[in-house]
Amino acid sequence: MENFEFRNPTRIVFGRGSENKVGAETAAHSKKVLLHFGGSSIKSSGLYDRVTDSLKAAGVEWVELGGVKPNPRLDLVHEGVRLCKEHKLGLILAVGGGSVIDSAKAIAMGAVIDGDVWEFYLGRGAPVDALPIGTVLTLPAAGSEASTGTVITKEEGWLKRAVNSDLLYPRFSILNPELAFTLPKFQVACGAVDISAHLMERYFTNVRNVAFTDRLIEATLKTIIRQAPLILKNSQDYDAWSEFMWAGTIAHNNLLNTGRIGDWASHDIEHEISGIYDVAHGAGLAVVFPAWMKHVLHHDLDRFVQWAVRVWNVELDVFNPEAVAREGIARMEAFFRSLGIGTTLAGLGIKDDRIDEMADKCTDGDTRTVGNFVTLDREAVRKILRLAE
Amino acid sequence: MENFEFRNPTRIVFGRGSENKVGAETAAHSKKVLLHFGGSSIKSSGLYDRVTDSLKAAGVEWVELGGVKPNPRLDLVHEGVRLCKEHKLGLILAVGGGSVIDSAKAIAMGAVIDGDVWEFYLGRGAPVDALPIGTVLTLPAAGSEASTGTVITKEEGWLKRAVNSDLLYPRFSILNPELAFTLPKFQVACGAVDISAHLMERYFTNVRNVAFTDRLIEATLKTIIRQAPLILKNSQDYDAWSEFMWAGTIAHNNLLNTGRIGDWASHDIEHEISGIYDVAHGAGLAVVFPAWMKHVLHHDLDRFVQWAVRVWNVELDVFNPEAVAREGIARMEAFFRSLGIGTTLAGLGIKDDRIDEMADKCTDGDTRTVGNFVTLDREAVRKILRLAE
Repeated sequence: MENFEFRNPTRIVFGRGSENKVGAETAAHSKKVLLHFGGSSIKSSGLYDRVTDSLKAAGVEWVELGGVKPNPRLDLVHEGVRLCKEHKLGLILAVGGGSVIDSAKAIAMGAVIDGDVWEFYLGRGAPVDALPIGTVLTLPAAGSEASTGTVITKEEGWLKRAVNSDLLYPRFSILNPELAFTLPKFQVACGAVDISAHLMERYFTNVRNVAFTDRLIEATLKTIIRQAPLILKNSQDYDAWSEFMWAGTIAHNNLLNTGRIGDWASHDIEHEISGIYDVAHGAGLAVVFPAWMKHVLHHDLDRFVQWAVRVWNVELDVFNPEAVAREGIARMEAFFRSLGIGTTLAGLGIKDDRIDEMADKCTDGDTRTVGNFVTLDREAVRKILRLAE
Repeated sequence: MENFEFRNPTRIVFGRGSENKVGAETAAHSKKVLLHFGGSSIKSSGLYDRVTDSLKAAGVEWVELGGVKPNPRLDLVHEGVRLCKEHKLGLILAVGGGSVIDSAKAIAMGAVIDGDVWEFYLGRGAPVDALPIGTVLTLPAAGSEASTGTVITKEEGWLKRAVNSDLLYPRFSILNPELAFTLPKFQVACGAVDISAHLMERYFTNVRNVAFTDRLIEATLKTIIRQAPLILKNSQDYDAWSEFMWAGTIAHNNLLNTGRIGDWASHDIEHEISGIYDVAHGAGLAVVFPAWMKHVLHHDLDRFVQWAVRVWNVELDVFNPEAVAREGIARMEAFFRSLGIGTTLAGLGIKDDRIDEMADKCTDGDTRTVGNFVTLDREAVRKILRLAE
């Protein structure tokens, strides 16, 4: 196990009706906030009214900024920063899924500096301050509600980049599984893949003696595998949603990488796919992950065997470990397909003509590698994308 | 799953040499602190010197209070409160195991009030403020390093009582597994039982649809079962200690009871044993838990079967669930004995002549019940103690 420091300060308010506590939770930090959201669904569902009623009751004023899209854009972040500065707002309240929360985190960093927040996403300097963030989660997937990360896309050049900082842990996150009842099946499925991917990025590590966190990750992954199909069968299944939502938060709140070093190559490769084609992040991951696994399998076959046996209940055959590992991968692909998600580039409608371009962008023209479990250069990324065809 | 609110603010600094960061961690909160510890072992081991060197380097002054004993006493708490008030100290730094940390938590509450902190332990009012607490953990067992709880014993009448408050989460806890290398085997074994008990108190719940936290608890329990024997074989096994220590913290930091209601009857019953006989808490729990299980087995046989199959690898026999459950209990008892810990009152040298007295004290003369999974009155507690003979 590696030395580590860990503290997750996000306060979780979980359960039926918990969005009605948003006013009190917000008021503890600021009485004048940016209310940030995506499309009109929070208005038609009544969530907008419940949230604003709660804010009013707690004496909190707000300025609104809707319109966050999947793969949230820098332009809207700039607009949010402007509003925060103009109205001297003290907290960003994100009502939505990972895109809204990631956008809120970008605004929170931008609101306290004179320059352009995009510089942080380009790796030029690190934030030293940020406005506090609160969230009301409507889509369990990205884990941004209790994480340090934010991913933003710059429209010009369609550049998708991430920032991680302890400053970005939300102060509170309100998780009511009922708010997810109305999600389209495809989004639920993409969420299940995204959460699984967060777990597997952490699982495949070169750090030895991580037996405890191995088991915690396996426990969380098995929860997603078990609950996702129940939700697709009955979108109103509160019990299944509860397990799924809480597991999605824990999958990405940094507890499960304590003492470990994760891989994250599949996320980097996927960002190039969804950067160019604007496909859903989860749908991209369902394509990349199996291909990545087939490429790196022999780097640590034992780890793949453990994963196949414990997570996918493949019967251990000590004489044929590769077959065990490959059966685990096959069961993962079957799981993704059972959710209605394809596992090939062709299934996403992507032809091979831009694979070289994606491999090039992913590795900055072969000047950097991605991944830690196995470090991948441009040629390796190209091979993985070819395996995904 | 029940609605819940969860936030654990304790900063964990984990790994080799981490005690050398204690000065910087402390200075972030206060420059004048109470240094609280137990016996002389921290001096002979060199830990005292490393801690005080680090404090000096960070410009932190301290007043010392050693002498904390297992089952920490109210008299010493009063002395600590006096020192904090006299010297206007701003943080209690606990260097030791659960007893030292629990004592520090009591002092932290007492230092900010005019009255006697024991009132809180008697349930008369709840704390509204406390000094910050920091810890350097030397004995993984009680989980107090990241928990809300403190248990103190009043010498007069040998009354052992607990307080729980979010104010008592330590601000930081320093976990270096190397500091546990010199622990006597018996203390290691008692720690393993205590951690297991924390997990099982949470596991046995009447709340339905807690599949995710079930699996997290199972993962943590399997870690203790796997690592404890390795440590007893080689006390310098850093890797085994790392898993064990981190699992011990997670077992009791309130993550694993999110959405659940735990039982805690076995802890209540054990407090009466160790209250009267001053036996080690873990040794008492190893006696109470198997007896409690045999008493409540039929309340929810399914839960016991799941536990036996998943945690103890008992082969599922759907036609004979009780046999599966009882085999799980038998394996748990065998595990405790393999650590060198007895599972009967007789093994602790306790005869039956004070069983009635313990059952009476535990239920305040049959005026209250203990436990949630099954509520136990005086007669039920008496039966469990008889089963433990």
